[in-house]
Amino acid sequence: MAGAQDEPSRALRSEIAWSTPDRIGVLGHDLTRDLMGRISLGDMAFLEVMRRLPDARESRMFNAVLITLVEHGIVPSTLAARLTYDGAPEAVQAAVAAGLLGLGSVFVGSTEQVARLLAEAFAQAQGEVSPRAIAQRIVEEHRAAGRRLPGFGHPIHKPVDPRTVRLLEIARETGFSGRYVELILLVQEIAGETSGRRLTLNATGAIGAICCELGVPWTACRGIGVMARAVGLVGHILEESRNPIGLEIWRRVEDEASQDIRGKLKEEPA
Amino acid sequence: MAGAQDEPSRALRSEIAWSTPDRIGVLGHDLTRDLMGRISLGDMAFLEVMRRLPDARESRMFNAVLITLVEHGIVPSTLAARLTYDGAPEAVQAAVAAGLLGLGSVFVGSTEQVARLLAEAFAQAQGEVSPRAIAQRIVEEHRAAGRRLPGFGHPIHKPVDPRTVRLLEIARETGFSGRYVELILLVQEIAGETSGRRLTLNATGAIGAICCELGVPWTACRGIGVMARAVGLVGHILEESRNPIGLEIWRRVEDEASQDIRGKLKEEPA
Amino acid sequence: MAGAQDEPSRALRSEIAWSTPDRIGVLGHDLTRDLMGRISLGDMAFLEVMRRLPDARESRMFNAVLITLVEHGIVPSTLAARLTYDGAPEAVQAAVAAGLLGLGSVFVGSTEQVARLLAEAFAQAQGEVSPRAIAQRIVEEHRAAGRRLPGFGHPIHKPVDPRTVRLLEIARETGFSGRYVELILLVQEIAGETSGRRLTLNATGAIGAICCELGVPWTACRGIGVMARAVGLVGHILEESRNPIGLEIWRRVEDEASQDIRGKLKEEPA
Amino acid sequence: MAGAQDEPSRALRSEIAWSTPDRIGVLGHDLTRDLMGRISLGDMAFLEVMRRLPDARESRMFNAVLITLVEHGIVPSTLAARLTYDGAPEAVQAAVAAGLLGLGSVFVGSTEQVARLLAEAFAQAQGEVSPRAIAQRIVEEHRAAGRRLPGFGHPIHKPVDPRTVRLLEIARETGFSGRYVELILLVQEIAGETSGRRLTLNATGAIGAICCELGVPWTACRGIGVMARAVGLVGHILEESRNPIGLEIWRRVEDEASQDIRGKLKEEPA
Repeated sequence: MAGAQDEPSRALRSEIAWSTPDRIGVLGHDLTRDLMGRISLGDMAFLEVMRRLPDARESRMFNAVLITLVEHGIVPSTLAARLTYDGAPEAVQAAVAAGLLGLGSVFVGSTEQVARLLAEAFAQAQGEVSPRAIAQRIVEEHRAAGRRLPGFGHPIHKPVDPRTVRLLEIARETGFSGRYVELILLVQEIAGETSGRRLTLNATGAIGAICCELGVPWTACRGIGVMARAVGLVGHILEESRNPIGLEIWRRVEDEASQDIRGKLKEEPA
Repeated sequence: MAGAQDEPSRALRSEIAWSTPDRIGVLGHDLTRDLMGRISLGDMAFLEVMRRLPDARESRMFNAVLITLVEHGIVPSTLAARLTYDGAPEAVQAAVAAGLLGLGSVFVGSTEQVARLLAEAFAQAQGEVSPRAIAQRIVEEHRAAGRRLPGFGHPIHKPVDPRTVRLLEIARETGFSGRYVELILLVQEIAGETSGRRLTLNATGAIGAICCELGVPWTACRGIGVMARAVGLVGHILEESRNPIGLEIWRRVEDEASQDIRGKLKEEPA
Repeated sequence: MAGAQDEPSRALRSEIAWSTPDRIGVLGHDLTRDLMGRISLGDMAFLEVMRRLPDARESRMFNAVLITLVEHGIVPSTLAARLTYDGAPEAVQAAVAAGLLGLGSVFVGSTEQVARLLAEAFAQAQGEVSPRAIAQRIVEEHRAAGRRLPGFGHPIHKPVDPRTVRLLEIARETGFSGRYVELILLVQEIAGETSGRRLTLNATGAIGAICCELGVPWTACRGIGVMARAVGLVGHILEESRNPIGLEIWRRVEDEASQDIRGKLKEEPA
Repeated sequence: MAGAQDEPSRALRSEIAWSTPDRIGVLGHDLTRDLMGRISLGDMAFLEVMRRLPDARESRMFNAVLITLVEHGIVPSTLAARLTYDGAPEAVQAAVAAGLLGLGSVFVGSTEQVARLLAEAFAQAQGEVSPRAIAQRIVEEHRAAGRRLPGFGHPIHKPVDPRTVRLLEIARETGFSGRYVELILLVQEIAGETSGRRLTLNATGAIGAICCELGVPWTACRGIGVMARAVGLVGHILEESRNPIGLEIWRRVEDEASQDIRGKLKEEPA
C-alpha cells in the first residue's frame, strides 16, 4: 500500500487489556484480583463478548448456550481435527484450528442467521406491528423467495430437539424468554400451519433467539459457537491421541474411493 | 494406502458422545438433563479433558487456570486474528483459527514443558529422593546441557509475575499446592542461588505445576491454553469489527519495510 | 448423524489419483513417466483445476495468471503468516495456513466475483444481445442496486494497473482475448462514461475475465489465488526466519494500542 | 509487551517486493516485464525460496520435486480439506488451510529431516572423511540411539519407490546427482547390509538429498512441500464440490464409532 503515504496516520487503539509489571487489566477488571478464582471460563467469555461481567441470571443462560455448542460427537469438524492431529501431533493448536475452519455457513452459521432475522425484523417493524404479524411476514417472505427458514429441522432430533426444550426452559427460569423467543415460536407455529407439518425448532434456532434476548449482537453469534467448539475439539484430539481412528478412516476411504480408477491411464504421451 | 488391503480392518470407536432422537450423551452425562443450566463452560472443559466432572475445588482451580490464559491484549496471535478478519470478515472461524495457529513452542508451549519436566522428574525418582534433591538435579541437568529452564522469566512481569502469586494462592486455598508446586518452587530457589539472581516464576510455570496437581496429563496442557485463547480471540475479532487497526498496521509496516528497495531492480533480462 | 441409518450408503469415489506398488496415476497420467521431469508446477496446477494438461498457449496464459497472484509484498496475509511463524517456528505449515485464511471476500474474492458476473451475463443473454448491451445492463444493475462493480479500482496502481496491461497483452498473444475480455473492457468503458471518471481495471478484474476465457469455472477462481499465494507465503516465512519483523510490530502496536487505558480499572468489586 | 518501551525500536525491513503506481518489483525483478508470461509457477517458487531465478537445469529438477509432492490422492490432509469444505463451502481458503495443517512431523517432515541429516553430516565431517565413512557413522548413530532413519520405508511403494527412481534419474540428467545423493544411497546400502533386508529409499528421502544438491536450506524443505500440496488440495476441494464424499464418511464413522456407548449414561445426578 505504498503510495497511500499521503493518508494521515490513524491511531491504533484497543480497549481490551493492558499490563504493567505488577498488574494486568482486562476490560476494566484487575485480572488477578477480580477475575482469577472468582469467575468461570463461561463468564470470561461473556466479558469478552459483552465487555461487562454477567449477573447470575445472565451467567446461567449464557453458560447453557455455550454448553449446548461444545460437543456434537463425531462430526466433520472433529474428524478434520483428528486427521490433522495424526499428521502433526506436535502441533495441537493446528488440529484445533483445522476443526474450527469448517464452522461456516452450513452448520454453525444458522445461529447468526436466526439472530439477524429476529433482530432485523423488530428493527424494521419499529414497534408498530404485533409479533404475530411480524412472524407472518417472515414466513411469507421466505416462502416467496424460496428460501429456507434458518433454525428449523434436524436429521436426528425430530420431531422435537431436546436441547431446544431445555434452552427455552432455562430462558423462562432466568427471565430471558422475551419477545425474540416469542417471535421464533410464532414463526414455528405459522410456518408449520402453512406447510401442513410440524416444524422442529432446532438448537441453533433457540440459541439465535436467546442471544437476542441477552443483547448479544448477531455478528457475535458465530464467535460464541467457535469458542465453545474449541473446547470440544480438544477432547476429541486427546481421544485421538489415546485411541486413534484417523488412519483407519484414511485406509478405508482410500481403498474404496480409488477402486474404479486404479491402474487406469490415458493414452501414452506423444 | 491401497496395497495395505491385507491389514485387518480395525473398529472405529469414540467414547465421547452419542445422539438419539430425544437424548444426547456426553461422556456419560445426559447433556440436557445433567449439564445444560447446571455447569459452566470451564467445568465442561474439565469434563472434556478429564472425562469426569470436577468437584467444587477442582472447578475453582481449573477455571482460574483457564481465566489466566484467555487474554493477553495485543500479542502476535491477536494481531494475526485481526489481520485475517480484515480480509475475510465473513469467516470469523478462520480468524480465530489464524490466531490459534501461533500458539506453538515459543509462547504457549512452556506450560507443557514445565508439566512434562515435573511429571517425569517424579516418575524417574520413583519416590526415593527428596524434592530438594530432584530440584537440584533438574537445575544441574539444564545448566550442563545449556538449556533454559521452562516457566521462568517474563519481559514485563518482573521481578514477580502477579498471576503466579494469585495462582499459587488459589492452589493453597483449594488444596492443590502439593509436591509439584513444591518442586517448581525449589527449582526456582536453587536456580536463583546458582545463578546469583532471583528468577521470576511466570504464569506458564505455575500453570504447568498446577496441571500436574490436578492430574491433567502434560500432553493436554497445550490444549487447555488453546481453548482459553479461543475465547479471548473472539473478543479481539469483535473489537476489530468495531474499531479496525489491521489496515493501518499494514499501511505503516509496508511503507517502512520496503523503503530501502523501492524502485530497485536487477539488470535487464537477457 | 445416528438415526439416519436408514439412508442407503452411498459409494465413496474420487477420480484424482491411485497408487500401486510401482505406479502412481494422477488424473489419467502416470506420475513418474508422464509428469515428473516433463511439466512445471503451473501446468500441474492446470491439471488439478481442469483435469487435463494444458497446451502451450494455455500453459503460458495460466502461468502468467498464477505469477501475478504469488507476491504482493507486505500485506495482511503475509503479516499474519509472519506473526504465526514467530510463535510456532516448528510448524511452517501452520504459518502458511494462517496467511491463507485471510484470502476471503475483501482481497482475493473479487476474481471470482468478476468471473461469475461475466459467466452469468452471457448465460442469461443466451447469445441474443450485443456485448455492448450486456455491459450496459451490468453497469445499470450495479448502479441501481448501489453495488460496487468488482474488479475495478486500486489504492496504488492508478490510473492504470500495470499487471492488467501485461495480462491483456499475453491474452492477445495466446489467443485468450475473446468475448469475456471484450465484455469487461466494455463495462470499464461504459461505467467510466456513466461516472464521468476513468475506472482502473485491476489485476483481479483482468484475471476474472481470463479465467472465463480459459474455461475455468468461476467457483475455481479463489482456489487459483490460494495456490499462488501459498508459494509467496513460503518466501515471507523464510525471510521472517532470517530477519524477523513480527516481534517489533507486536511491541510497537501493543505500546500504542493500550496507551489510553493502561492502569485504568473500573470500581473495586463488591 | 508494554514495559519493554526502553528497548530501542528496530527498523522493519523486507526485501521481497515493492510497488509504485506503474511498477512492481519482486526480488529484484520487474513483475510485469520479467516474470509474467516468461516463467512458470515452479520457477516463481524457486525465486521465492532461493531469491534468484533458476537456470534450465535447476528449473527442471526443482519442478520435478514439486510435481512429486502435489498429489497423493485420498490421504488425511485431503480428507480434512474436504470435510472442512463441506461445512464452509464459501471459504475455499479455509479448506485448503485445513488440509495444510496436518503437514507436520509424520508425513511431510521427513524431507526436512533427511536434508538436515545430510547437510549436518558433511558440515561435521569437514571434508576429511570418505562418504562411506560418514554413511557408516549415520547408520551406527541411529542404530545406537534406537532412532529410525528418516527417508526410508513406504507402506505401498516397496521394495522400490518409483518416484525415487525417477527423481534420481532426473538428478543425473540435470547434474544434481552429487555428494548428497551419493551419501543417502550409501546410507541405504549400509543400513540394508546391517539389517539384512533391502531398505526402500522413499520419495521424501530422495527429495531431501536433492534439495541439498540444489542448495535449498533444510529449513525450507517443509515449505516446498506445503506449496506443492496447496496445489493438490485445490483439486480435491473442486472434486468435493462436484461429487461430495465428506458427509457420507461422517455418517458412516459416526454410526460405527458410537455404537458401544449409544444410550448409556452414568448414574443419575445427585
